[in-house]
Amino acid sequence: MSVAPDQLLTALRPGSTAAAPAASAHAIAAGNPADVARQLARQFAATAPARDAAGGTPKAERDALRASGLLALSIPTEYGGLGANWVDTLDAVRTLATADSSLAHVFGFQHLHLATVQLFGQPAQWRPWLVQTARNHWFWGNTLNPLDTRTVATRQDGYWEFSGKKSFTSGALDSQMLVASAIDAQSGKLLIAVIPTERAGITLQHDWNNIGQRQTDSGSALFERVRVEQAELLLDPGPLSTPYASLRPLLAQLIFAHLFLGIAQGALAEARQYTLHEAKPWFRSEAEAASKDVHVLVHYGEFWTALEGARLLTRQAAQVFEQAWQKGPALTTEERGEVAVAVTVAKIATSKVGLDLTSRIFEVTGARATHAALRLDRFWRNLRTQTLHDPLHYKLQELGDWALNGDYPAPSFYS
Amino acid sequence: MSVAPDQLLTALRPGSTAAAPAASAHAIAAGNPADVARQLARQFAATAPARDAAGGTPKAERDALRASGLLALSIPTEYGGLGANWVDTLDAVRTLATADSSLAHVFGFQHLHLATVQLFGQPAQWRPWLVQTARNHWFWGNTLNPLDTRTVATRQDGYWEFSGKKSFTSGALDSQMLVASAIDAQSGKLLIAVIPTERAGITLQHDWNNIGQRQTDSGSALFERVRVEQAELLLDPGPLSTPYASLRPLLAQLIFAHLFLGIAQGALAEARQYTLHEAKPWFRSEAEAASKDVHVLVHYGEFWTALEGARLLTRQAAQVFEQAWQKGPALTTEERGEVAVAVTVAKIATSKVGLDLTSRIFEVTGARATHAALRLDRFWRNLRTQTLHDPLHYKLQELGDWALNGDYPAPSFYS
Amino acid sequence: MSVAPDQLLTALRPGSTAAAPAASAHAIAAGNPADVARQLARQFAATAPARDAAGGTPKAERDALRASGLLALSIPTEYGGLGANWVDTLDAVRTLATADSSLAHVFGFQHLHLATVQLFGQPAQWRPWLVQTARNHWFWGNTLNPLDTRTVATRQDGYWEFSGKKSFTSGALDSQMLVASAIDAQSGKLLIAVIPTERAGITLQHDWNNIGQRQTDSGSALFERVRVEQAELLLDPGPLSTPYASLRPLLAQLIFAHLFLGIAQGALAEARQYTLHEAKPWFRSEAEAASKDVHVLVHYGEFWTALEGARLLTRQAAQVFEQAWQKGPALTTEERGEVAVAVTVAKIATSKVGLDLTSRIFEVTGARATHAALRLDRFWRNLRTQTLHDPLHYKLQELGDWALNGDYPAPSFYS
Amino acid sequence: MSVAPDQLLTALRPGSTAAAPAASAHAIAAGNPADVARQLARQFAATAPARDAAGGTPKAERDALRASGLLALSIPTEYGGLGANWVDTLDAVRTLATADSSLAHVFGFQHLHLATVQLFGQPAQWRPWLVQTARNHWFWGNTLNPLDTRTVATRQDGYWEFSGKKSFTSGALDSQMLVASAIDAQSGKLLIAVIPTERAGITLQHDWNNIGQRQTDSGSALFERVRVEQAELLLDPGPLSTPYASLRPLLAQLIFAHLFLGIAQGALAEARQYTLHEAKPWFRSEAEAASKDVHVLVHYGEFWTALEGARLLTRQAAQVFEQAWQKGPALTTEERGEVAVAVTVAKIATSKVGLDLTSRIFEVTGARATHAALRLDRFWRNLRTQTLHDPLHYKLQELGDWALNGDYPAPSFYS
Repeated sequence: MSVAPDQLLTALRPGSTAAAPAASAHAIAAGNPADVARQLARQFAATAPARDAAGGTPKAERDALRASGLLALSIPTEYGGLGANWVDTLDAVRTLATADSSLAHVFGFQHLHLATVQLFGQPAQWRPWLVQTARNHWFWGNTLNPLDTRTVATRQDGYWEFSGKKSFTSGALDSQMLVASAIDAQSGKLLIAVIPTERAGITLQHDWNNIGQRQTDSGSALFERVRVEQAELLLDPGPLSTPYASLRPLLAQLIFAHLFLGIAQGALAEARQYTLHEAKPWFRSEAEAASKDVHVLVHYGEFWTALEGARLLTRQAAQVFEQAWQKGPALTTEERGEVAVAVTVAKIATSKVGLDLTSRIFEVTGARATHAALRLDRFWRNLRTQTLHDPLHYKLQELGDWALNGDYPAPSFYS
Repeated sequence: MSVAPDQLLTALRPGSTAAAPAASAHAIAAGNPADVARQLARQFAATAPARDAAGGTPKAERDALRASGLLALSIPTEYGGLGANWVDTLDAVRTLATADSSLAHVFGFQHLHLATVQLFGQPAQWRPWLVQTARNHWFWGNTLNPLDTRTVATRQDGYWEFSGKKSFTSGALDSQMLVASAIDAQSGKLLIAVIPTERAGITLQHDWNNIGQRQTDSGSALFERVRVEQAELLLDPGPLSTPYASLRPLLAQLIFAHLFLGIAQGALAEARQYTLHEAKPWFRSEAEAASKDVHVLVHYGEFWTALEGARLLTRQAAQVFEQAWQKGPALTTEERGEVAVAVTVAKIATSKVGLDLTSRIFEVTGARATHAALRLDRFWRNLRTQTLHDPLHYKLQELGDWALNGDYPAPSFYS
Repeated sequence: MSVAPDQLLTALRPGSTAAAPAASAHAIAAGNPADVARQLARQFAATAPARDAAGGTPKAERDALRASGLLALSIPTEYGGLGANWVDTLDAVRTLATADSSLAHVFGFQHLHLATVQLFGQPAQWRPWLVQTARNHWFWGNTLNPLDTRTVATRQDGYWEFSGKKSFTSGALDSQMLVASAIDAQSGKLLIAVIPTERAGITLQHDWNNIGQRQTDSGSALFERVRVEQAELLLDPGPLSTPYASLRPLLAQLIFAHLFLGIAQGALAEARQYTLHEAKPWFRSEAEAASKDVHVLVHYGEFWTALEGARLLTRQAAQVFEQAWQKGPALTTEERGEVAVAVTVAKIATSKVGLDLTSRIFEVTGARATHAALRLDRFWRNLRTQTLHDPLHYKLQELGDWALNGDYPAPSFYS
Repeated sequence: MSVAPDQLLTALRPGSTAAAPAASAHAIAAGNPADVARQLARQFAATAPARDAAGGTPKAERDALRASGLLALSIPTEYGGLGANWVDTLDAVRTLATADSSLAHVFGFQHLHLATVQLFGQPAQWRPWLVQTARNHWFWGNTLNPLDTRTVATRQDGYWEFSGKKSFTSGALDSQMLVASAIDAQSGKLLIAVIPTERAGITLQHDWNNIGQRQTDSGSALFERVRVEQAELLLDPGPLSTPYASLRPLLAQLIFAHLFLGIAQGALAEARQYTLHEAKPWFRSEAEAASKDVHVLVHYGEFWTALEGARLLTRQAAQVFEQAWQKGPALTTEERGEVAVAVTVAKIATSKVGLDLTSRIFEVTGARATHAALRLDRFWRNLRTQTLHDPLHYKLQELGDWALNGDYPAPSFYS
């Protein structure tokens, strides 16, 4: 069933923010996380342009996420979480992204980190982490960057020390827990650990200043002889060690797909408001309103067609992922491969559709919509920034190898 | 769940035709119309290039369709049909289109005609037609063309006479029944009738000779004082008279979407066979086989992404249509509007994706694949021809009017 | 002859700025305005990112333009100018735009205003203005906006008064002369006047704050009973009154085409430096350097093909325009129409090519190039903003009317 | 100066054929080969659809080319030719391609072969060939295919024998002279010879039957102990041995660019006639004629923009090529590289623009234009076939290597 334009807008219209009650534990108690996500999106939308200008850590909004209970959205109810499946968890990421893709990113990665410990570690390790996260509204941050090998792990007497730099540490500032990686100095192997953010020796820089995704705090970190206990390492089964463990990068990619889709939907919703209420028909137009100009309509027809295809691909990928997650460690290589294909298609489609749409919306708003106060360019800047996480042309090459040769994407931290 | 490339091919590989048993009542009895459609597709694929060259009426293949029982696919079991829903009926259209889009067209229109009588007429009228169609394997043909107003109906004493010309009468030749339209000379109103093809005064020309869809017999007809009984007119509720009756053009559009998707899938499957087994890597390529050339892979990645989006949009539209059909005459304007939106998106997407793909497949096959014996150009020619049924830019305009203004496409014979 | 990549870069490389001598009257005296423009571009490039962040009036750079003598570039030598033809004048606009499209805009409009008085007024009027502009390095600003009808002219005893608001007054701040428009309260006719910026009653707001073209001062103005002498009105032949006078909007459009081309060239040059010197090959790449990755190369091949076509179209349009200018008042409607066609094609092509390229350059730089210090997004933001001056789809419609029906674009302030 | 639509049509309108006098030596004597080419194009256009259907050797048209004198177009006047430069010779190829791209192909290759002997051989060799070609209206055919290594040369006592098969021997049937290649059995080196078509041992098959370029006779040949004299070998300087000799593949590519441009122009001209005189406005259109429908106009605007860019790129490439030809053996590697860049851009642009346009013209003609008698699909089929000569993605990669790294395309028979 297609999403009607008005539904799209209901969730997004900044004008309706005033009346919206703050997301609250009450809403959660009422049992509808999707509503909570929509309320949060509405709240965030009201200040998103200003915060895009400011950059930095969106402390108030992160606290609102904590208060909402959604940080425990994907945590099973037995551990105190909301027990949402991945389809619903990812949809909450998308909903937030329609309003603020920085917050959607760190929110999505919250659940990626929680999945990571379940995929790479043992229940005995991750159960307490999940329980405490749900109970204490812990935010998890990222200091895992497989392509950045500057942080080295050296084995000490019964524990390890991590030392070195890290880049792209999204959401590490203002977090309680970190997923951190280092290269074992001896074996050259990648080690992944879970440590409290306040652990001695960790310095998180306030140095993220990019053209987009400006409130993700994706700056750099410095590890100086950070002590890591053996029990904090995710060794069994360890990173990408099995088809099931290899779901982790697919979840990361799937979060991006939902992020991109949400950004594009948000851009379309704002453009629509502008066309309907602010734009004037061009003096050569035979239409009485810009919203009935035939060329404007063709643009919207193209936007919708592209977006609707991307939406279905993203939903399909989430469903396929959820099925695979349900299978657990029994997941076969082929089943994991099918998830990879579905996720890759969704990521490619949302990237392409989003980049086109966030640039073209201005064709249906006109020159006055470039006023900086609207910051309508932020959709493109956010998407442009995040779509560079890994190159699109290699995604296409991988997918082509499957479509032509039947070879599934080889698991890596990007596929 | 995405369709694996090999599954796609299983249904299409001409090489495997020899062993395939002819589709038969036995298969139907075994209860799997989808298998029967696949068997027929395999049969048709073997001769499709030669028949594309020849044009004319594919008599043997039409008879194979009759023998298969699939002409009664959408007819409820209570009337002797196979009782398939629209999702499955349309999927059979798509399956046939992967091999032969001319036969898929007349097969799809068979079911469009059977739906037309149910949507525009009264059960007392159409029940016998459905029963006899199922029992006698009747093929229905088209002499309804709302934009061609040259055929005029004049009221006689207790009956009507239709006189004049008709164009684009797909599937009328070698049919048993016709859905025919004429303009009431007095009121100027469109009248639609159901009459036996052999009725005196009807001349069907063998004059269809176009660049594509060459075996659809979409030529012209001449009506010379053709007697039409009052009971043969579909007056209650009549054409497009209610939201439910207005599903008819949406089914026609949806048949096209499935046709276009099937053509694109067939083209990709043939291209894939060629790349895998015939193509050589370009002398500048570092790959050992054309199938591992990175540029070739990127093309396939793009093909698959586009096709998979179109596939999901088409499936969604079929599902939405089926739900609306189930609602029957209670269908509201808004519900009908939602179907129109879903169908419009699917038609646009399959048109665009298909046109691009059927032209670009040659980039991954190379020059030798232009050999006329392969007739690989037929996919583009068939799609190019059929996508002109109604203009894409007006579809986009209509869809845009909904996406922006929330106005549903106004029902007509094309929307 | 195509422009070699290194030539493109020579003019643009910020690193080479230090050694570049400031543009000076000396350079002009040496007779090479193109060199002066390149030197200025190099100067401006060094601070362009910072000034893009700051917004506001680029006073130092405007003064550098004054000191360079280029404000008199298009003024005939007999009036003390450099006597450049339009091909060379426009090429200087393009050169500046590779580095800073805000300055290129006001520089281009300087010459548009000087052309306007020659096209709409009498020599006795404009000769002194040209002479004084050349002698005193006057900067001209824009308060002519034909679609903004809020400023009204009322006839007084022997003079006029202009009162009302104006938007999009590019380059009015820090200017010496203004081209101003108002609607005659009696006749409703558009009046265009030339007045000193310091004339009593004119308030120029510092309120331009947009996503792009941030240093064009395209904010608003307030006219409060501004006295305008009869001799300051451009009445003979007046606006768009003859084919020759109607060259004015074509020059405006042509300035935009050169602006867009320059922006795209600048974006490509910066992207190239980044790919060559900063980017790393993706871990899946078989290339030793990002600059030899086959996918990266394909992007550059596409960039170059598109840009080279746009370059030739823009050059052709400039040449055709110059020929028409040379013909003077004898210019026929058909000859003016041919200019319009050439200019329209150039504007469309540079818009499309530029928007695609400025967004896609990030595919060949990778994620680190989103660092805000580089402000690589400014190319897209500048182009996105300026390409909205008038809608692309109406340009296409106009051009199509000529290509199909042979009807030339009807002269207006936008065609 | 842009080409007005009517000029485009004047050369193409089949309807005006009747009055056109046959191209004749008289016309040539009157000194205007461009007029002769236009007359021939008009003649060929009248029968092009029928001959596209028939395939085979267009004997009458080849004889018309002989009679026109244009087979000697590029031959210097001192050898009895018309002495046209390459810009004009290639423009004649383009003119013919607007009407019939098969004949344009063999006509273009006529001059490629004449250039080949001048570039690879010694004046003492090629002077008599040029003289006799001009005098006797010899047609030259192709049996040189560097990627087809099945023909082997074995040294005999004072002469050579060529034995083996050849594919893609365009224009060899009905020719007087052949450029033939073989691999030296001893050294593995490519040998190129010029021999009379009637030489004993040569069998030319009538086996060309492809989806496009159907009258190029690009079938296969069999060489059975064909005697080749030492003096018939082009050994000094030999194939691709110097920058100047390496112009040969660039001329081949440039012929293709002109061919593609001509096909696209021809397609647009025919589509325009159809839209103007046959098409009806869609029932939802507010225009009185299809030719004033805004969507139709936008299509034409896009067609023209793309085509005009491709036209300028092609003309630029021809001019750069002519300059290089004039330099002769003194041509430097860098100068040859610049030609390669210009030619590559033109080939890419005309390929892309042409493929898009020849498929999209149907959007502006509507369904009735698919009638087989019009064979409007032949433009796409011809272009699709010929654009596969060498892969577009490798052209883009090569061009990108230059745009990014400044590395010129490495000379080969395809670059």
